[in-house]
Amino acid sequence: MSSDIPDHLELLLRLERRAGVSLERQLLEKLRGAILQGTMQAGWRLPSTRTLASALGISRNIVVAVYDELSVEGYLILRHGSGAYVNDDFSLPAQVAPPALARMPRWLPPAPSPLLNPVDLEPDMIVFQPGASLISLLPLSVWRSTWQRVTTELPPSFYHRAAGDPELRCALAIYLSRSRGIRCTADDLILTASARHALQLLAEVTQVRDKAVGFEEPGYRQARDTLLAEGAHILPLPIDDDGLRIDALPTGIHAPPLVYVTPSHQYPLGMRLAITRRMDLLAWAQAHDSLVIEDDYDSEIRFDAAPLPALAAIDAHRSVAYIGTFSKTLTPALRLGYILAPRVLLERIEQRLLQTGSQISWPMQRALYTLLIEGHLERHIRRMRRHYAEKRALLSQILAPIAHLARLRGLEAGLHAYLELRADLNARALATTTWKRKVMVVPVDFFYYGVPDRQGLILGYGGLDHNALIAGATLLREAIEQQAQGR
Amino acid sequence: MSSDIPDHLELLLRLERRAGVSLERQLLEKLRGAILQGTMQAGWRLPSTRTLASALGISRNIVVAVYDELSVEGYLILRHGSGAYVNDDFSLPAQVAPPALARMPRWLPPAPSPLLNPVDLEPDMIVFQPGASLISLLPLSVWRSTWQRVTTELPPSFYHRAAGDPELRCALAIYLSRSRGIRCTADDLILTASARHALQLLAEVTQVRDKAVGFEEPGYRQARDTLLAEGAHILPLPIDDDGLRIDALPTGIHAPPLVYVTPSHQYPLGMRLAITRRMDLLAWAQAHDSLVIEDDYDSEIRFDAAPLPALAAIDAHRSVAYIGTFSKTLTPALRLGYILAPRVLLERIEQRLLQTGSQISWPMQRALYTLLIEGHLERHIRRMRRHYAEKRALLSQILAPIAHLARLRGLEAGLHAYLELRADLNARALATTTWKRKVMVVPVDFFYYGVPDRQGLILGYGGLDHNALIAGATLLREAIEQQAQGR
Repeated sequence: MSSDIPDHLELLLRLERRAGVSLERQLLEKLRGAILQGTMQAGWRLPSTRTLASALGISRNIVVAVYDELSVEGYLILRHGSGAYVNDDFSLPAQVAPPALARMPRWLPPAPSPLLNPVDLEPDMIVFQPGASLISLLPLSVWRSTWQRVTTELPPSFYHRAAGDPELRCALAIYLSRSRGIRCTADDLILTASARHALQLLAEVTQVRDKAVGFEEPGYRQARDTLLAEGAHILPLPIDDDGLRIDALPTGIHAPPLVYVTPSHQYPLGMRLAITRRMDLLAWAQAHDSLVIEDDYDSEIRFDAAPLPALAAIDAHRSVAYIGTFSKTLTPALRLGYILAPRVLLERIEQRLLQTGSQISWPMQRALYTLLIEGHLERHIRRMRRHYAEKRALLSQILAPIAHLARLRGLEAGLHAYLELRADLNARALATTTWKRKVMVVPVDFFYYGVPDRQGLILGYGGLDHNALIAGATLLREAIEQQAQGR
Repeated sequence: MSSDIPDHLELLLRLERRAGVSLERQLLEKLRGAILQGTMQAGWRLPSTRTLASALGISRNIVVAVYDELSVEGYLILRHGSGAYVNDDFSLPAQVAPPALARMPRWLPPAPSPLLNPVDLEPDMIVFQPGASLISLLPLSVWRSTWQRVTTELPPSFYHRAAGDPELRCALAIYLSRSRGIRCTADDLILTASARHALQLLAEVTQVRDKAVGFEEPGYRQARDTLLAEGAHILPLPIDDDGLRIDALPTGIHAPPLVYVTPSHQYPLGMRLAITRRMDLLAWAQAHDSLVIEDDYDSEIRFDAAPLPALAAIDAHRSVAYIGTFSKTLTPALRLGYILAPRVLLERIEQRLLQTGSQISWPMQRALYTLLIEGHLERHIRRMRRHYAEKRALLSQILAPIAHLARLRGLEAGLHAYLELRADLNARALATTTWKRKVMVVPVDFFYYGVPDRQGLILGYGGLDHNALIAGATLLREAIEQQAQGR
């Protein structure tokens, strides 16, 4: 290499005549890198284009082009007749290792609450996870045909309706009419990424910050957390064997503007809201100009019990926002839910979806359309019912011998049951005992906002296969017997 | 039918011995419907089970089961020895037609701003839509193979990491290193539904409400709207030919905690932020403990100009949150974006994704993984570059004759250019003129937060085919000439 070029640049600027990256590109990147890394310091004069070209054995045009580009980019100053210099103004921040952020930066507010870290579960743990389902009941051939509509056509270049494709929403309206007796049209529906996403959007557009929201106690904790994160004040409402006690709802000026309920299968206790109470709740909402948020998270999965009409199906005064999901009937991995609500609310939600850029993707919409319109979903739900009915029977059978200690409830529907413990038993201690023996059950305490007044366990059996269910329930039965015997 | 049963129930309770729906289910639904619709009023005594069974010609067991179920559901009261009655407590809300909601309900706050309705475009309109791209350049065979990984395996029953699958994030980190020189790992990245979704999450976790956010003026309006919706105060910052004027950034106690920039291709004017300014911006951010939000929305689509290093690539002090999207390189219909940021920020964003239930679905993640790992995306981008370079040349050529009136700028990268008009021309009037002749162009005014100080048009050419581009640009040229001639 020519003596015009400092030795330490020799290695640096060595170009490779390899395929794929042009010599110009290589030189550009190497020079830029040298400046950025401080190897070529501010004010340093570069070799002339002729000198560098001859030293590197490349055409001078390449060097001229590279110097020009670096000048345009601001790395170099080209002085006419005098050559190229590394820009003086180029003040590189000191290349220190990233600091460990010992101190929080001022743009990061204090964490709103201790962050919930997902529990690390050992792989051989038997987890009675509430809400878990088994997508494995879906034949792979059905899954494959679900995607056919997606793969045979390129997606559009634009995003059309934030609410979701009208054709898909029409199919969803028909599905809701068939499965839940809700009469609605495409315009009454918006697609969301989940029931939780629907609830969060609802909370945003109704501006729940500093407002009271009536909430079942115990209730669906994740939904409550979403409302709390939006700044709502939770007003815990008692439940009994017939579900939410409507007589406990505040009236007059104390009536909360929103009430969240799970009428089909109370989360977590599993009872259904009695029909008279449904009527009373709607009458209360109408009288107080309040909105009822009906979370119908797993109503499709019901057993011998017939479905009670959804609040949305008997609501004559647009007091109900109905939230649904495909997380239980299919899998949460699909991120598909929906909301059915008065149109004045839907308009706001669609705007919010646009503003937050969190609309549902075209491929997922197409796939869901196929699942609905070709009857795949309804057939899958029938398979699930048979399958979960078996599991439910198994669970009942295993726990039957300790009925005097622990009574299974909320078995009419859904993917979990509530195991009501005798008052002198301790649910938390039981959960700790079984945890040590690799069986995870959730004490009902977890779902309370205030002070728990029940002893019980939530047993999510939907996600367990038969063997795990038998092993887990048997171990649980033994643990309960042992606790009762004071061992 | 037996005379024990009122005539008007005769039609109502007629059962069909058809496949699919059991007689029990039919009877249950018909009776429930009659109660809900008020045909069978509160207090009414039902026929005995024996009478009804014989009248309908069905087994008495069926009727007993149905009465029991309706009693459990609260529709009927069974009085021992006296029969079944429609529940007295059953107060059905009056079945009036839904009111037109003349008055807003109390749970619906006033609309935050006039709702933006999408403009109704006639189908033969030539739309110079900024940001629009053409997914049609992707071969259908590539699209099909993209989905192969999705269709050959059932999705999981659980949702794992809200941040996105680690394997996919690893592939994305490699892509960012190749395409933007950003060295990062899977743990530095979170997947989002779009760049806008990423920005909204950032705004939420940094709690921008009532905080100042520095923002280019003119700037990316949709991003500004997202920040405004989160309650941020927008601090407009001037730009010149080298991009954002760093010298105009407030210092000391007036320094905003966040600054949003589009360094690769300023939105909407199209210039690149000079390298010295990049350094100065980072030094400013470090000195003031501020966060720079770098929206690199279309950096992949660049032409003869070499890329300048991303702020995230030369940021030594974790002052940068880098936002990217696949909306421009693929299509917004996929709803795929990402954010690369200091981990302390990512932890919060992942929590927020969980809380809002708006994580990316498993099928979309699998598809993106294939696009990245098999090189489909990079090949597609190369095709796009060639294609858009042609369009760019075409646009330049058509507008060349009026260079004294209108100068094309910001052509080094992206899917749109800025047409700077001579100061005495009127961009709004031009847009109105061309609109009437079915060509939509956007005046630069649209992107201002304050008072516009430029006359110009934003020409999104990415989504137009050649013929539309030629027709639209020619018409635009004529309109400019006519305005200049005072016609």
